[in-house]
Amino acid sequence: MRVSVLGCGRWGSFHAWYAHRVGHAVTLWGRAGSAHLAQLRGTRTNEFLTLPEDICLTDDLATAIRTAEIVIISIHAQALRSFLHDLHTQGYGVELANKYVILCMKGLEIGTGKRLTTVVHEELGAAVQPVVWVGPGHVQDFVRGIPNCMVLAGEDRDALHTLVDVLGSPLIRFYYGEDLLGTEVGAAAKNVVGLAAGMLDGLDYGSLKGALMARGTRELVRLVRTMGGDGETIYGLSHLGDYEATLFSPHSNNRRYGEAVVRGTADDFHKIAEGVYTAEALMALSKEYGVDLPISSTVYEIVTQGKDPREQLTRLFLRATKSEKE
Amino acid sequence: MRVSVLGCGRWGSFHAWYAHRVGHAVTLWGRAGSAHLAQLRGTRTNEFLTLPEDICLTDDLATAIRTAEIVIISIHAQALRSFLHDLHTQGYGVELANKYVILCMKGLEIGTGKRLTTVVHEELGAAVQPVVWVGPGHVQDFVRGIPNCMVLAGEDRDALHTLVDVLGSPLIRFYYGEDLLGTEVGAAAKNVVGLAAGMLDGLDYGSLKGALMARGTRELVRLVRTMGGDGETIYGLSHLGDYEATLFSPHSNNRRYGEAVVRGTADDFHKIAEGVYTAEALMALSKEYGVDLPISSTVYEIVTQGKDPREQLTRLFLRATKSEKE
Repeated sequence: MRVSVLGCGRWGSFHAWYAHRVGHAVTLWGRAGSAHLAQLRGTRTNEFLTLPEDICLTDDLATAIRTAEIVIISIHAQALRSFLHDLHTQGYGVELANKYVILCMKGLEIGTGKRLTTVVHEELGAAVQPVVWVGPGHVQDFVRGIPNCMVLAGEDRDALHTLVDVLGSPLIRFYYGEDLLGTEVGAAAKNVVGLAAGMLDGLDYGSLKGALMARGTRELVRLVRTMGGDGETIYGLSHLGDYEATLFSPHSNNRRYGEAVVRGTADDFHKIAEGVYTAEALMALSKEYGVDLPISSTVYEIVTQGKDPREQLTRLFLRATKSEKE
Repeated sequence: MRVSVLGCGRWGSFHAWYAHRVGHAVTLWGRAGSAHLAQLRGTRTNEFLTLPEDICLTDDLATAIRTAEIVIISIHAQALRSFLHDLHTQGYGVELANKYVILCMKGLEIGTGKRLTTVVHEELGAAVQPVVWVGPGHVQDFVRGIPNCMVLAGEDRDALHTLVDVLGSPLIRFYYGEDLLGTEVGAAAKNVVGLAAGMLDGLDYGSLKGALMARGTRELVRLVRTMGGDGETIYGLSHLGDYEATLFSPHSNNRRYGEAVVRGTADDFHKIAEGVYTAEALMALSKEYGVDLPISSTVYEIVTQGKDPREQLTRLFLRATKSEKE
């Protein structure tokens, strides 16, 4: 099929590389003036991979969208609304309603706590039925040929089955998920748990990542259930299944950022980890739905209010004695 | 209080060290002729720790039991029945009914799939109400002062509260669990998931440990529910909360054993990892309760029937395309 990938950063370039690998005709779009696009045009490589010659590189959004049957959007989650707003203004909303639209990003909108598919509906209308592509795996591992399982979730079951068929391969084996709400909240929130994991690593309390897994999942199950989703989705590939990559891998940006916060070197990061925005968005959901989120709010207070990580995390894990179910 | 620890291997010696640390009067018992006991008597150390002088070391079981208010049993799970049978024969059953009895071990009886507290009831009678002490943590970490959360589970809620009070400390923060069945099955089964994790590591498929966590928990939730326990217990400290220690830590005996199986060096282990016995016990439960356990049975077939790990694990994780909930 004809696949266009919008966004040419680490994941966008990977999705182009992968779609080509499984046999599709691929266009990779970046903004005019994008440094990533300029580098790929000049060398066909970035720090992660090399793109085959027959992937078309372009800054022409009209062509990228019009020619595609599958549109994969891979940009920063917090930039999604303005990007879609521009697409709508330029008249692409109707066109996208007739294509498979896949969101390859993890996050919740800061300020509103809204899911990314909600942002799609608000900006492009209800006729666009996006599918989300989430789950474990690092670009660095995939390009070395290390396989993983991922998940495609959406409300249009026929679309899901088609996409699982045309995108699956021995490198990425897809499962399909029917609880879009739980999948999106879980995929976003795992970055917050990743920040907490990095903080524990930085404090030499890495062995508490076991308790973090047990209790981090539990508070998110409560949130998803209260929001009307299926709590068990949290224990699936989009959240718990992504813990190896997020809580343990040296590649995990959020884990490394959490570690840097504890060590006082977070300023060395040239951009804030996505989990920081998600922690703030989760505070909005906690308030809106009246669900207590002890781990997420501890992370939020440490990264945005400068509270002491050792004191906060020690209190969280080591002071209360109570039933596991409370 | 007066605490006697029965069994002086790695964990038994740790429990004595820990009970002393939190202020109890401690006796540590080992069999007459035990090499571990001889080493501790000679040097007061083993490869993990040094015991303070005022911990009493003995091979006199009568004194160890009669003087104790809390009896901690820390021997190999598969040796529990014969050990308790001997205790009963020697007339200790009635005496133990009036003490706090804590089982510090993880396993299911091979051949029957029975829980260890069931073995206690069958050998010592229903009047003995054992509490199980499980959850994450390695001796190597605790003796370095690295804290963790653990769980005490049992049916006597007053006993649980007392034991949480007298055994908790900043080094081990206890939660109490009321689902004894789920706690015991989960604590035992995590060793089987640990074997699978080691096999994935050995195949350079460590990134599939994310999917392993998501799917390993799911099949055990089904089993515990069918057995009449609370499926959610699997997501607590006794199982998921122990995954850091079991699936990721270099100290994990089961993970290392699984890796050795894949590399063909399992013969270098001087004893079989407990997870091998538990895998066989889980096969008995799978049959008895009619619950399919794909990961546990794959591990079982690899370790006991010599099936090819790469072929079996690839099939398990990378061939089926389906809904996450199936």
